[in-house]
Amino acid sequence: MSDTTATDEGQEQVLQDVIILGGGPAGFAAGIYAGRGRLKTLVLDGMGGGGQLNTIDTIENFPGQLEAITGPDLVDKMRQQMEKFGTEITFDQAEKVTVDDDAQAITVEGAYGKYRGRTLLLASGARHRHLNVPGEEKLQGRGVSYCATCDGAFFKGQRVAVVGGGDTAVKEAVYLSRVVDHVTVIHRRDQLRAEKVIQEKALASENIDFLWDSVVESIEGEDAVTGLKIRNVKTEEKSELTVTGVFVFVGILPNTDIVKGLVNLDPSAFVVVDADMRTSHPRIFAAGDVRSGSVRQIASAVGDGTTAILNIQEHLDSETPPREQS
Amino acid sequence: MSDTTATDEGQEQVLQDVIILGGGPAGFAAGIYAGRGRLKTLVLDGMGGGGQLNTIDTIENFPGQLEAITGPDLVDKMRQQMEKFGTEITFDQAEKVTVDDDAQAITVEGAYGKYRGRTLLLASGARHRHLNVPGEEKLQGRGVSYCATCDGAFFKGQRVAVVGGGDTAVKEAVYLSRVVDHVTVIHRRDQLRAEKVIQEKALASENIDFLWDSVVESIEGEDAVTGLKIRNVKTEEKSELTVTGVFVFVGILPNTDIVKGLVNLDPSAFVVVDADMRTSHPRIFAAGDVRSGSVRQIASAVGDGTTAILNIQEHLDSETPPREQS
Repeated sequence: MSDTTATDEGQEQVLQDVIILGGGPAGFAAGIYAGRGRLKTLVLDGMGGGGQLNTIDTIENFPGQLEAITGPDLVDKMRQQMEKFGTEITFDQAEKVTVDDDAQAITVEGAYGKYRGRTLLLASGARHRHLNVPGEEKLQGRGVSYCATCDGAFFKGQRVAVVGGGDTAVKEAVYLSRVVDHVTVIHRRDQLRAEKVIQEKALASENIDFLWDSVVESIEGEDAVTGLKIRNVKTEEKSELTVTGVFVFVGILPNTDIVKGLVNLDPSAFVVVDADMRTSHPRIFAAGDVRSGSVRQIASAVGDGTTAILNIQEHLDSETPPREQS
Repeated sequence: MSDTTATDEGQEQVLQDVIILGGGPAGFAAGIYAGRGRLKTLVLDGMGGGGQLNTIDTIENFPGQLEAITGPDLVDKMRQQMEKFGTEITFDQAEKVTVDDDAQAITVEGAYGKYRGRTLLLASGARHRHLNVPGEEKLQGRGVSYCATCDGAFFKGQRVAVVGGGDTAVKEAVYLSRVVDHVTVIHRRDQLRAEKVIQEKALASENIDFLWDSVVESIEGEDAVTGLKIRNVKTEEKSELTVTGVFVFVGILPNTDIVKGLVNLDPSAFVVVDADMRTSHPRIFAAGDVRSGSVRQIASAVGDGTTAILNIQEHLDSETPPREQS
């Protein structure tokens, strides 16, 4: 087992104890413990870190955080805490993951470099699912959005639609109702799936309406969104809705393309883990939104990251030769 | 399925959506989400809540908590947050858990009342393992302690021993070194198992010494601790150590006596769960230190509690009749 890679510069020379893919709450929680445990750690994130928290306006359910806080502020605290314990974030996007021939290390190829680690923690999160209807791709950034806190302000005084009925959709509708003139929530079922507290806020809001049992068939407009074509799934009735913006929150897709074939995935492509956050490969662990069965909360991501890294540490300590004691 | 119990007063009448056993970080995190989800929830704790956090002096690794905080302060924030969302804590000690004959509800008998819930979340934590050596039981509270932050101040200017080599033992030794005159750490192995950051603090401390490969054979003293009899497990050499206090941190035992026979336990009596925090009984979930494979951190307990309660909510919502929409 060699502790250098084929190339011989900087981080590429180092055999890390663990490579953490993703700088969201799961990755940063793991990074905090990795630092305290003096693991040689590389946290890779192609977007500068923060993950989905960058798009969250108000967090009031993260345990211990009694005052409401923004997503960027909370995740920045976690990053600072991680750096305080000596774990740094490296800006690079992982593009390929392979297991070395001797099965003793994992190689991650990024856009800017190649990295090797004795173990890998997949904390790469998830991204928004698209509607896949005509007009959606063409009008992205021209009225079609997947982030209300990013784009809501562009629609001040205008009418917008929110598609979806889960936590995120309803939360974002409430947020938008304070920013724009009017919000129509379009949901394929006849009731919301969101947390009750959030539902109540939405249902009590004077400028939020609901279109139940409805789906978007197409997004209309040439250079910018002008409206939606809608179908009622129970009556098959068709209608049109005039809006200048449409915010899509219809679920998430895991960022697992780069580990396909390396670890077992569930039918929706999330990584299957046990309660220790172990995947089907002994050197690969997963935590947060990317793992099968995640409840997709900041608190659960942080918990997963902590559980994963301490089991990784145990795995490393159990190996011969053990990791260097620094 | 009835929504009252045999008795007919106060809480005993109510069929809860979930009974949470234990008011530590796992239970409070679950309580926060239960409140936001408008579940009818009862949190039972016989000791007033806080769990093992009540005994922790300094926490600097809870993600998002950038400034160090005491255990009681952190857990108090979680309790306030839970109460803000409408979940209250009830002071009672669960003594017996049974599943109703129709398997539709769980009954918890406490010292002061009887409670029923459609589901149960076991977040009852763990307690300190004892050495089980002569003198230990007799001298508890007279020099034998399991909590440095509770009892350390009594030993100002004196010499004490700490037994154990894990995170808790070494953390508590560092804490005690600032309070007492001198600390001897007695550990059965030749190296510590604690986090590296904590090890370094302990090894750098001028008034902490280490007795490696050693175990306590007995605790000496009539009305108060006067010393320890010690055996080196490698050389079999015996020695005596003059101390007025001994702090024991040799692992934890799960509080699972009341669910024996109801759910599968691992060989150390921790509750076996899957990654959703489901036990072998469909209406019973477990979270935090009480569950098998817990890494015993505040962050992981909070994550477990969040994962458990959102899966409980899904279980309740999937049942017919669904829980009342309030």
